Amino acid sequence: MQESERFAARVEGVSGSAIRELFKLTSRPGVISFGGGNPSPAALPDEIVADICRELVATNGKVLLQYGMTEGLPALRESLTGYLQSEFGVTTDAGCILPVTGSTQAFNLLLDAYTDPGDVILTENPTFLGATQAMHLHQLRVIPVDSDEQGLRVDALEEAIRRHRPRMLYTIPTFQNPTGVTMPLERRKRIAELAAQYDILVAEDDPYHSLRYTGESLPAIKAFDMDGHVALMGSFSKVISPGLRVGFLVCEPKLLRKCVICKQSDDLHTANLNQAVVDAYLRRDLLRPHVQEVCARYGAQLNCMLSALEEMQGVQRFTRPEGGLFIFAYLKNNVNATEMLMKAVDRGVAYVPGTYFYPDGGHENTLRLNFSNADIPTIERGMALLNDCLK
Amino acid sequence: MQESERFAARVEGVSGSAIRELFKLTSRPGVISFGGGNPSPAALPDEIVADICRELVATNGKVLLQYGMTEGLPALRESLTGYLQSEFGVTTDAGCILPVTGSTQAFNLLLDAYTDPGDVILTENPTFLGATQAMHLHQLRVIPVDSDEQGLRVDALEEAIRRHRPRMLYTIPTFQNPTGVTMPLERRKRIAELAAQYDILVAEDDPYHSLRYTGESLPAIKAFDMDGHVALMGSFSKVISPGLRVGFLVCEPKLLRKCVICKQSDDLHTANLNQAVVDAYLRRDLLRPHVQEVCARYGAQLNCMLSALEEMQGVQRFTRPEGGLFIFAYLKNNVNATEMLMKAVDRGVAYVPGTYFYPDGGHENTLRLNFSNADIPTIERGMALLNDCLK
Repeated sequence: MQESERFAARVEGVSGSAIRELFKLTSRPGVISFGGGNPSPAALPDEIVADICRELVATNGKVLLQYGMTEGLPALRESLTGYLQSEFGVTTDAGCILPVTGSTQAFNLLLDAYTDPGDVILTENPTFLGATQAMHLHQLRVIPVDSDEQGLRVDALEEAIRRHRPRMLYTIPTFQNPTGVTMPLERRKRIAELAAQYDILVAEDDPYHSLRYTGESLPAIKAFDMDGHVALMGSFSKVISPGLRVGFLVCEPKLLRKCVICKQSDDLHTANLNQAVVDAYLRRDLLRPHVQEVCARYGAQLNCMLSALEEMQGVQRFTRPEGGLFIFAYLKNNVNATEMLMKAVDRGVAYVPGTYFYPDGGHENTLRLNFSNADIPTIERGMALLNDCLK
Repeated sequence: MQESERFAARVEGVSGSAIRELFKLTSRPGVISFGGGNPSPAALPDEIVADICRELVATNGKVLLQYGMTEGLPALRESLTGYLQSEFGVTTDAGCILPVTGSTQAFNLLLDAYTDPGDVILTENPTFLGATQAMHLHQLRVIPVDSDEQGLRVDALEEAIRRHRPRMLYTIPTFQNPTGVTMPLERRKRIAELAAQYDILVAEDDPYHSLRYTGESLPAIKAFDMDGHVALMGSFSKVISPGLRVGFLVCEPKLLRKCVICKQSDDLHTANLNQAVVDAYLRRDLLRPHVQEVCARYGAQLNCMLSALEEMQGVQRFTRPEGGLFIFAYLKNNVNATEMLMKAVDRGVAYVPGTYFYPDGGHENTLRLNFSNADIPTIERGMALLNDCLK
């Protein structure tokens, strides 16, 4: 083999996000997709963003079009402090906040700055596929921890910590991807305690936090972090626009500094205009009314999908999320959701087989259903098609 | 030491870009900066970009604000094929082009996809500091190769290849950073040949290509690549706006695929709006007249700085670039440019000491001068202040 045909060890055997590849297969015209995690087109505020972009560049273009600091736009770091307090119950200051190019980058920077190949990372079981891909690219040992309808089981977590001596825990405590389940207050507190006790870092991924349709908002695990053992990652992809690629990382300053050094080589800084659009949403109190509108829409879509699931004979059980974007369903009679997918796409509906979200595979009778991207009539049609597949 | 006080091996000992830290020191109000690589504020097309942003989001916001493909906006990949042909003499197709979040990301992805810790990478001597930082974060062995007033010496390169068996060569063939020198046609051809002969990958960084003020445009090394041994990286930071963070990578499809996999975990995709602005510049033929205007401005600024250098007794010699952003100067009597910097800043002028650009250090009597960011009266004032420091 030629040298130039060989690639880095970190990319050998990593074949790319199965979900993103699946999108290509299932994005045939006419196929109803419950597969992605896309916001509804109706929830993308194109008119407001168009006006804000023009205004920001016209009034402050010489700054926004110039190079910015790797640490992010000072105005956005400042406005994020208030947002973190009101939305996540996290009291912090601008020096602990790093605006990033989507929360995908936040996790990648944390892995760059804090993990070495061979380190152990614990995750929920199942967990977000994009995150496990980043773990594999960092050559980590991924150990899934038993999870139930309240998320990560803290007894299983402590046992896994003692047994595997992990460097990091990756968790999505709120409206988890793919299950939609939310970790109650006591578990959040306990995880912060365990992280301090065993000196591990919790990478808390909370991109769906504001998308709550019922129940009470909960503070982030980061809110219970006394001594820098939790790094919180958030995103504006689900509440403003994924195409803008703006998220944030909150962690203690020494770790943040290492992430900044990695970001210098990663993309130098997050695009200024994109940061400024998010800052404008926060400062002008545009985010809250927009999220309210989006929640009303998605809440109705969630209820529609839950009602359809209740009627489906082939479904054994499914989660009942209080927010977020996803429902996780378990099929009866060990029907294989991967094998069923092509049949479903042929009938005109797509989803993601749940097995992809289990780091150790298996659980072939599960699937993840997204309810944010399709409107109610489309959800009704798509669920009827899915029901046909199961008959 | 607590576990949580320890960081990843790749970030231990990497202290961050000296240039970016220097910016903070030298950005005191009133200090004339020849230090950065910033475009002139006058060259940032704020009014046009403001209008384009509004128009693009208003007419196509439901697409631009939604998730995009990691591979990039199809329209931009398409328009880049024509741009690569006309500007770089590179014949390629959209499947070999990856839009990225600034060419900084292009190099990071190449290192992710193609290098393992301990691999050898060859560079010019001196070379771009941001690139060497990325090499250190990838734990590469950086070997600088003798360079002269025509760039990399190809005889020294062949010797270094035989001796060190490198995995990659990093080169900036056109208006090099920090020296401003340009590699002639024959050397470009020879480098492509050597890469094929010894089966190494050339990472060709060409962000200043279009900023030519005198002489004839030269094809990229990539133009002479027959079998995928050259990856070309380009940027719109210097010709439209650095704050938008849009660049591109051109390489053979298998390597591109591995870079796409790394980009999935890096930032998922480059912001759609930012890609669409660049696409509009290319499609509407806005880039060519803008670059002409910028070149007229920068060319006059370059001449002004060269004239000032000719009059300076303390300067031994300096490069005479045909384009780009930088002049490299050598001081007489072994004056130490790092030691002189604080004195210069106190007098009101800043630059980057050249020693930072030499991977092995030394060359303390050198400095890099940027002529793009300051207008002619400011350059005259700044060079007079610098002359005072040398007396």
